[in-house]
Amino acid sequence: MTAVPSNRTYAEQLDLADPLARFRDRFVWGGNEQIYLDGNSLGPLPLATQARISEVVGSEWGNGLVRSWSHWVGLPREVGDLIGEHLTGAAPGQTLVGDSTTVNLFKLISAALGAQPGRNVLVTDDDNFPTDRYVLEGVAAQRGCELRMIHTDPDQGLADETLRAALGPDVALVSLSHVAYRSGALADMARVTGLVHDAGALVLWDLCHSAGAVPVRLDASGADLAVGCTYKYLNAGPGAPAFLYVRTELQDRMSQPIWGWFGQQDQFAMGPGYDPVPGIERFATGTPQIIGTAAVAEGVRLLAEAGIDRLRAKGIALTSYLIHLADEWLVPYGFRLASPRADARRGNHVTLYHPDAWRISQALTAAGVIGDYRTPDRLRLGPVPITTRFTDVWDALDLLRRIAADKSYEDLPAELSRVT
Amino acid sequence: MTAVPSNRTYAEQLDLADPLARFRDRFVWGGNEQIYLDGNSLGPLPLATQARISEVVGSEWGNGLVRSWSHWVGLPREVGDLIGEHLTGAAPGQTLVGDSTTVNLFKLISAALGAQPGRNVLVTDDDNFPTDRYVLEGVAAQRGCELRMIHTDPDQGLADETLRAALGPDVALVSLSHVAYRSGALADMARVTGLVHDAGALVLWDLCHSAGAVPVRLDASGADLAVGCTYKYLNAGPGAPAFLYVRTELQDRMSQPIWGWFGQQDQFAMGPGYDPVPGIERFATGTPQIIGTAAVAEGVRLLAEAGIDRLRAKGIALTSYLIHLADEWLVPYGFRLASPRADARRGNHVTLYHPDAWRISQALTAAGVIGDYRTPDRLRLGPVPITTRFTDVWDALDLLRRIAADKSYEDLPAELSRVT
Repeated sequence: MTAVPSNRTYAEQLDLADPLARFRDRFVWGGNEQIYLDGNSLGPLPLATQARISEVVGSEWGNGLVRSWSHWVGLPREVGDLIGEHLTGAAPGQTLVGDSTTVNLFKLISAALGAQPGRNVLVTDDDNFPTDRYVLEGVAAQRGCELRMIHTDPDQGLADETLRAALGPDVALVSLSHVAYRSGALADMARVTGLVHDAGALVLWDLCHSAGAVPVRLDASGADLAVGCTYKYLNAGPGAPAFLYVRTELQDRMSQPIWGWFGQQDQFAMGPGYDPVPGIERFATGTPQIIGTAAVAEGVRLLAEAGIDRLRAKGIALTSYLIHLADEWLVPYGFRLASPRADARRGNHVTLYHPDAWRISQALTAAGVIGDYRTPDRLRLGPVPITTRFTDVWDALDLLRRIAADKSYEDLPAELSRVT
Repeated sequence: MTAVPSNRTYAEQLDLADPLARFRDRFVWGGNEQIYLDGNSLGPLPLATQARISEVVGSEWGNGLVRSWSHWVGLPREVGDLIGEHLTGAAPGQTLVGDSTTVNLFKLISAALGAQPGRNVLVTDDDNFPTDRYVLEGVAAQRGCELRMIHTDPDQGLADETLRAALGPDVALVSLSHVAYRSGALADMARVTGLVHDAGALVLWDLCHSAGAVPVRLDASGADLAVGCTYKYLNAGPGAPAFLYVRTELQDRMSQPIWGWFGQQDQFAMGPGYDPVPGIERFATGTPQIIGTAAVAEGVRLLAEAGIDRLRAKGIALTSYLIHLADEWLVPYGFRLASPRADARRGNHVTLYHPDAWRISQALTAAGVIGDYRTPDRLRLGPVPITTRFTDVWDALDLLRRIAADKSYEDLPAELSRVT
């Protein structure tokens, strides 16, 4: 990267050459001059989604009333298939939108244990996202299983040899994130899935920080189970429903623990006993949130129009440019890269260590650049491939070097806030 | 009711005297001339909710982006308290909005079992809503408990003596609906709760068909646990989040099974082990749906403005008038009341038996009156207290007697559809 110029003109040239540049105008920005580098927490609002929500509310609910359920009822599966087709490499009938990531993790982890008689160890790594670790801890406590926590390098992700050492004939399930929420380390899904399968275990991938930004190939990787959220790179809005994936061959031999009427065969017969529908809809539970599910569909359509491979190429270009500028401008002020340097090993966000990361992130926000802080000493910068400009990255890093130089952040209080 | 005239003029007079008549204009009707008697499936769209959703989407998400989480994060509890204050008689800190009714049932049933060591029987009745029965069946199967299913009169609801006979020192939890989904039978919450407590069991009330239409007094009744949905009488839209209630004294000795990051103490410390926050938020799991939660708040505010006691008075007036007209006009055509006749024993919907209920409900819909069908032979009519006119009831029943008289419904196919 030494040949990359560090002047703003170069960033402007990259913007001019960006084949996705026109997509920025497909989002609501509210006239704000802010630079948004937190797409990995909450993606921005597509204009099409705003219009679609208005239609679902005013026309489908307001005018159609209960009659609209005749088409709403198919949405969780239809929108799931859309995710599978355009973003996660899943053939139809394996992906379902609904509930939260946390609830979906609970359903799939419990179901996996039930499908692996004689194996009572759950494996995850200590850098996995908190809710993943907590759900695993809870299921292990309730089922009397062991939760085997393996150590991951906090900057580089999980090493094969570490995982291999944790596997054995007692392992039912390995639960991992495809892209690590702090470091952004990207796992090799096919290779790791192969390692897990060699030990006879199932693998559950959390796609929250990869879906919509990094091509995911669930079917081709042989993955068994996956969950993901839609409010990050899928731009479906705060608390929009999550999704889950269960490989076809596993579906009918798995039983998820929350037996609800939306997973019931012949739902409106309202029969006396639970008899789950065959296929992916047996992983459904209660009444699905319709507004959020419709928003997911719009978000996926927009990403599909841009193309996941072009989004990935731009994501790599943005993050490698960010790392280049950080090397040049920030390392002298005590910053250190907390993400993999190799493009192929990194998802779509870049994390930087700094002892004063919290106060620096606050100073950055106050100056109009929205990044993110992660405990205890990390600044996380997540460009949105479909909207972020190279000049946004330049401006943000330029601001960061000025904040670091004048140390104005030292006047800020050193307390935590509560932001997802 | 014999003194009630059956001419339309009388219905018009009732509308003129209705103190809630003005609330009809606070809803979106789309210029449709339909008569909506399915508020117990999906409530209509309040204008204020339409505006509020537009604001949450465009302004809070679109412009505020991730910064809006600083106030979104408190919504599940704040809106829960609003429900408690205006609709369900719960002091603050006991009600939380989130997930679906099904997921909340799973959480509370599992937690109740854990809080009742040495007791391993779950009790419910065979007329409870399907998802309640399925969740109980699932938890019983997974925990190796007994599910004791007691028989309820399908028209009149659960008899005290039947319940008493099912109780014993082995019973951990009794799970019942406050208003039965088919018959509309209204349970005496305080008396039944007392019976259950006499046996040392906990009680879980499903408020889906009562909250927002019938005053609920959770605290005063001594109720332990409750769940409810918001898309019926709370008018919060399709798949809006449900709510749950846990009596203060029980909260910290209960552990719900889905350990997620939104139930974690010091959530953004993202610490190594699950350590649930004290109080009602320990029953939270994943990221809450924000648009739906904001819609619940608007729905509750509108009901609060009308006043739950006035809504109940109008609900009784509408349903007793409906029963009066049914007695006069429909019984001669083979209809029979499938709901309690006494006002104090009935929720807000009226169900009628007819061997051809399915085809009659289809003919009714085709003619612009939206009612509801429930297996196998029931027509369910749920006026919306805040919007339904007495002339709507008159017109619907008049249409029904004409459909019954000319038997035009006999040309319709006799198959099931899928409507919630």
